[in-house]
Amino acid sequence: MKAAEIPRIYIPPCSCLHRMSRDEGEQKRTGNEAGRAAVQRPKGTRDFLPADMEKRRWLETNFRKTAGLFGFREVATPAFEHVELFTLRSGPQIIEDMYDFRDKGGRHLALRPELTAPTMRLFIEGMTGDPKPLKLFYFGNCFRYEQPQKGRYREFWQFGAEILGAKRVAGEVELLCLADACLKASGLKRYVLRIGHVGVLRNVLEDAGVPAGKQAPLMPIIDKGDHDHLKAALEDLGADCGHVMDVLGSHGGREILSNVPGSGLGEVLDGLASAGVGGYVIEPGIARGLDYYTGMVFEADVPDLGAEKQVLGGGTYALSEVLGGERIESTGFAIGFDRVLVALDAQEVPIPRSRLDYYLIPMGPSERPLALEALAALRRSGLSADIDISDRNLSKALKYASSSGAQNAVIIGESERTSGNLTVRNLASGQQRPARLEDLLKR
Amino acid sequence: MKAAEIPRIYIPPCSCLHRMSRDEGEQKRTGNEAGRAAVQRPKGTRDFLPADMEKRRWLETNFRKTAGLFGFREVATPAFEHVELFTLRSGPQIIEDMYDFRDKGGRHLALRPELTAPTMRLFIEGMTGDPKPLKLFYFGNCFRYEQPQKGRYREFWQFGAEILGAKRVAGEVELLCLADACLKASGLKRYVLRIGHVGVLRNVLEDAGVPAGKQAPLMPIIDKGDHDHLKAALEDLGADCGHVMDVLGSHGGREILSNVPGSGLGEVLDGLASAGVGGYVIEPGIARGLDYYTGMVFEADVPDLGAEKQVLGGGTYALSEVLGGERIESTGFAIGFDRVLVALDAQEVPIPRSRLDYYLIPMGPSERPLALEALAALRRSGLSADIDISDRNLSKALKYASSSGAQNAVIIGESERTSGNLTVRNLASGQQRPARLEDLLKR
Repeated sequence: MKAAEIPRIYIPPCSCLHRMSRDEGEQKRTGNEAGRAAVQRPKGTRDFLPADMEKRRWLETNFRKTAGLFGFREVATPAFEHVELFTLRSGPQIIEDMYDFRDKGGRHLALRPELTAPTMRLFIEGMTGDPKPLKLFYFGNCFRYEQPQKGRYREFWQFGAEILGAKRVAGEVELLCLADACLKASGLKRYVLRIGHVGVLRNVLEDAGVPAGKQAPLMPIIDKGDHDHLKAALEDLGADCGHVMDVLGSHGGREILSNVPGSGLGEVLDGLASAGVGGYVIEPGIARGLDYYTGMVFEADVPDLGAEKQVLGGGTYALSEVLGGERIESTGFAIGFDRVLVALDAQEVPIPRSRLDYYLIPMGPSERPLALEALAALRRSGLSADIDISDRNLSKALKYASSSGAQNAVIIGESERTSGNLTVRNLASGQQRPARLEDLLKR
Repeated sequence: MKAAEIPRIYIPPCSCLHRMSRDEGEQKRTGNEAGRAAVQRPKGTRDFLPADMEKRRWLETNFRKTAGLFGFREVATPAFEHVELFTLRSGPQIIEDMYDFRDKGGRHLALRPELTAPTMRLFIEGMTGDPKPLKLFYFGNCFRYEQPQKGRYREFWQFGAEILGAKRVAGEVELLCLADACLKASGLKRYVLRIGHVGVLRNVLEDAGVPAGKQAPLMPIIDKGDHDHLKAALEDLGADCGHVMDVLGSHGGREILSNVPGSGLGEVLDGLASAGVGGYVIEPGIARGLDYYTGMVFEADVPDLGAEKQVLGGGTYALSEVLGGERIESTGFAIGFDRVLVALDAQEVPIPRSRLDYYLIPMGPSERPLALEALAALRRSGLSADIDISDRNLSKALKYASSSGAQNAVIIGESERTSGNLTVRNLASGQQRPARLEDLLKR
């Protein structure tokens, strides 16, 4: 276990800030440069400012609504788990890429690097008695300790879904339909759904002379698409390369299946046709790295993203028994939430922005009570409204209102106070009109 | 620094599961008892099942909508931060209550125990150049390493808001209005907003003979309401107890302010009156533990909750300069999201539950294509729909549909397939009627 070898350097409290500044030299120092160095966010993590959060919540809401229309229900698990949960799924080498630590009670914990194993643990601990099938979805942050680079962060978000206890083909059809609907709901203009089948792959390897017991080490090589390495590995095993390489290199429509032994994938495609899902590519070379896949596997790419083009991955797997539960038919996928956002940006997909309805500007202390009353009334009737809380003069207050994206300013001066008519200014056109509060509330 | 003294026991991988079972003896073992012990969730954390998540998302959405109506904008920060961020705000003793750890690069990090300091760090790193005031809100999980007990978990959620760079009184009024509106939007039937002022408290202490430099240690004692301890501490300082104890023991309406020196709190109450916020209690004894408060402080209690009755806390504070930023007027609050949920439960506040519109049941393989087509059409038109993916017989499928909360079942058998009429069964009344798909889509 690599984790135990990591030096746990003790740094006296007084030097912490200096030490941090050196460690984080690649981050620009901000704040009060003259005084104490400002505390900075940890390397590889991000803050999300209001404009970011608005996009993120919009996408999250679209995914959640879509899952709801499909009858999936949301679950959530803790941000950290016992390390074993992830090593049992992914092997001990995953510890090197995780934030693992011991808590004050000596428990060996890890910030979750993914959400399938936690969701399966939740099922084993709390939902085994529920009527099947279970259609669950989740949205949450995950953590990997890896070198930060464009589009790869140490904290990132996943949206995903799992179907537990369905008949295999029907479950795979339903899951693929949801994956496709989520990608559509995100507004992506271009993406490719690539579908394969681990059973097909295993049959092809077996026919070429690689017995089931020797296939596992080949899967990550196939997954990486490293054909030279694979060829060498097959030759070492004395297997017949020709057909394997042909099948792995093939991709296309339904006709691809005529070239490989049956797997139930044809029935899945029938289901997709009935449900109106098209535009996918059949690719028998999809292996999905992990050993636990047992059936259909699939990925989605956004070509605009270059090397980091994969935005979704999933398939049919056996995990419950690995974690100590009963065997249950399981199929699921996870979407890289952050990558979809990058893709939306690359494809210039417009994301609606909410704008404040009214920004109220009382011209002096005598007008503030009336302004506060109007403000409360607007908000109560479901209109978004804000008020100047900086005692600015009119022109500065109007400038602030415009820059913050408000649609209208409501000016309340002495004449407005005595007449009861407010002055409403459209901040785009600059046009002003008198209006009574009741009229604003009606709109 | 206590954290460095914690023994970091190395446990060989093969014994991890056994070790865990002993550690977590208080958790019931579940899953496949005959085979490997199932991995369990970490002590003091929770899983949220679909019925929980529906309530949680409902409350979160209400809070987010309310903040949006008020012109607040959402921000988010990483789940962990450099430890210094929290020790600078709360003192080094907070390390004992945090999940702190060293990452693989030797950084001393902590899972965030609260969200005000991270939000302030975000401001210092990324928003100092933005037009002021900034009205920000957040919703996220926080972590404390403390003994789990009823209503206290090691991972919990906070919703909060901060106003940065406003005029003090106007900002305090706006913040109190938002806090009150959030509590109202949550559906709570009973809660008490208690408002105090650290300036009032400090003036009273000064008048009693406790100079400013000696007041800090008294604040936590006042905060705890431990009057015997306070009396002893005041006597040690040679201070005049009488008036202090009178003021601390007082609570009521605006008249309380006549008993204490001015603080601007009167103007805040004027603002609340204009905005229609009433029903609060003035309590000069609110001290809010931390030394960084500088003005109005407030809390909200739900009396139904007993000892854990506080659901909200906040006030006007100086934190930016402590973290290495420029001084900026700041006022904010945080709501204990989990406690509000417990309170809603205690007050039996009904939370709307979404129910599936249609559950489709194809009677055999020949009917599945038609059912999948109907399913896709319903979902595309914004109706929530699910389909039997377990090949159950009709009565079992109807039972599953009812138990999952669906409103209607749509039965598709041979006669439905040939006639084009679907059979729609209302699952509450049991009444069945024929309907064409187009009619279902129109509703």
